[in-house]
Amino acid sequence: METLSAATVADPVELTRALVDIESVSGDEERITDVVEAALRGAGHLAVERDGNVLLARTELGLGKRVALAGHLDTVPIADNVPARIDGDVMWGCGTSDMKSGTALALHLAVTLADPRYDLTYVFYDCEEIEAERNGLNRISRTRPEWLAADFAILLEPTYGEVEAGCQGTMRASITTTGVRAHAARSWLGSNAIHAAGDALDRLRRYEARRVTIDGCEYREGLNAVRIAGGVAGNVIPDECVLDVNFRFAPDRSEADAEAHLREVFDGLDVTVTDSAPGALPGLADPAAAEFVAAIGRPARAKLGWTDVARFAAAGVPALNYGPGDPNLAHKKDERVEIPRIRTGAAALRRWLGR
Amino acid sequence: METLSAATVADPVELTRALVDIESVSGDEERITDVVEAALRGAGHLAVERDGNVLLARTELGLGKRVALAGHLDTVPIADNVPARIDGDVMWGCGTSDMKSGTALALHLAVTLADPRYDLTYVFYDCEEIEAERNGLNRISRTRPEWLAADFAILLEPTYGEVEAGCQGTMRASITTTGVRAHAARSWLGSNAIHAAGDALDRLRRYEARRVTIDGCEYREGLNAVRIAGGVAGNVIPDECVLDVNFRFAPDRSEADAEAHLREVFDGLDVTVTDSAPGALPGLADPAAAEFVAAIGRPARAKLGWTDVARFAAAGVPALNYGPGDPNLAHKKDERVEIPRIRTGAAALRRWLGR
Repeated sequence: METLSAATVADPVELTRALVDIESVSGDEERITDVVEAALRGAGHLAVERDGNVLLARTELGLGKRVALAGHLDTVPIADNVPARIDGDVMWGCGTSDMKSGTALALHLAVTLADPRYDLTYVFYDCEEIEAERNGLNRISRTRPEWLAADFAILLEPTYGEVEAGCQGTMRASITTTGVRAHAARSWLGSNAIHAAGDALDRLRRYEARRVTIDGCEYREGLNAVRIAGGVAGNVIPDECVLDVNFRFAPDRSEADAEAHLREVFDGLDVTVTDSAPGALPGLADPAAAEFVAAIGRPARAKLGWTDVARFAAAGVPALNYGPGDPNLAHKKDERVEIPRIRTGAAALRRWLGR
Repeated sequence: METLSAATVADPVELTRALVDIESVSGDEERITDVVEAALRGAGHLAVERDGNVLLARTELGLGKRVALAGHLDTVPIADNVPARIDGDVMWGCGTSDMKSGTALALHLAVTLADPRYDLTYVFYDCEEIEAERNGLNRISRTRPEWLAADFAILLEPTYGEVEAGCQGTMRASITTTGVRAHAARSWLGSNAIHAAGDALDRLRRYEARRVTIDGCEYREGLNAVRIAGGVAGNVIPDECVLDVNFRFAPDRSEADAEAHLREVFDGLDVTVTDSAPGALPGLADPAAAEFVAAIGRPARAKLGWTDVARFAAAGVPALNYGPGDPNLAHKKDERVEIPRIRTGAAALRRWLGR
């Protein structure tokens, strides 16, 4: 079986590279989960459990306070950018930023930090980059909520070394336009569903996204088409066109508020919400959150991408995002991470969590 | 092997039903071609040749004048409307109108009219409903032009029993919009190619199609989206969207004119012409055309749909459209043909072509 050497696990940069080189597009995480599980079990000081492609590793030192570190194992589809490539201080490749450099920090600490200041919980999970219902942490939060129990959680999503508070919600909806099929040579006998979708696209192009400041953090919303499909044949007026949109909303809107807003934007059109996940308010007043922010020594800012901090928040666990990747590079073909930020992140976490 | 009984071939209505029940979506005509070939060879008075899924059957009576009857064997995709269903005077099903009722007239005459007034050429061919380069008559017109030799041709496309002159041209083009991928949570870092396609859809919705009268026949143009596709993943700003349009143009425009017009309509956008076929002017001044129109006893009108009369016209053979189907029902889920029009068509052709 494929394993990570002790030297690889001991070096968070080499560990990042090794994780990137194990392709793990959402839905295909079996192999990377096997490798991470073997490394965790090899450490000796951790109680390890597995459920599907979700891994839990805990110290059981009776320290009275428990911190959770969590990271997902999957990536968006490969875009000709695996294996990882190092050029000077930069590592390029799918997942380098989102979020194998962060996941590597958690795995590195899990295996090498045997004597921590707080009891620690590590969670590694699958299917974060696709629809919420398949998300491994979502599943576990329903079936094994005790796995998430902690006083405070850090999700190692890319933040470029900043502390990012809360997160925006995300909602996907399909806008379906219909028409009447006809032969394209006599188009006036039909009604073109693709032309009708132009109305929805016009609304998207005119849409002015809101910006809102909460606890000093500015959230910036966005409403975008992510897929469109319509057409029957090259000589047929199409009778259906489906436009999928993704709405990213600030955490002052609930999912119900977000849906109402979408329905207002697309008033008169056929809207079906297909997927959603709530945001999380920044919660910076919480003492545990404040302690971590103080330890990093930099002010928190808003997390724009949806992250699973929302699942910890829903379980009553204050949570922040902190990771070495640059969120602006996530999901891009030229995704990359600055290697010094991996080392800085590992050192900062070890300083805070070690004795 | 599957065959048509003599009784079926002798009854153009039963023959229509039998042909509809042999599914023959474009690209899948082997089976129907086998059946039609066997019927033609069984007639005895015809010289039959086959090239792929194109069939030629000719009388060789030395009558000095030759008339061609042509029909395609394929249909658009089945829409839960096969096998054929007869309800009173109406036969429902895919291809009943376009154009198995017309093709049945040609096959019925080919087998049963052994002693015609003119020498006759029958052509049955494949792939008419898809891109022009796969069209069987197009292929044959290049590789075996002698098969199309005639003094006059009738294409049995649906005209609802009217004589329809010439045909409109058709051109397909792809309009590609591009953008920049980004995570949907930070959409302002990308550029949305689907939103950009809204501009092209707006132009289509604003487009005012031209009407033009030639030789007393009114042609009516149309410009329509027939397919749209874009999107990478549910959380990615898409970097490409492709919109396919179909332009139906009056025969006073050449293909070059039509392309120039498309490029003007979509000025500033990335336009690629993917497929085109010229129109055919009505040519009603030609004596052979006039003779047929007089025999039917009704004035000719414009053919709006593109038909392979353009291929006969390009080969110097005057050609008209005449068939029992209703062109307004072609390619629709509720496609159907009025049974009396099949019988009227068979009788009219037999009157004109018989002795």
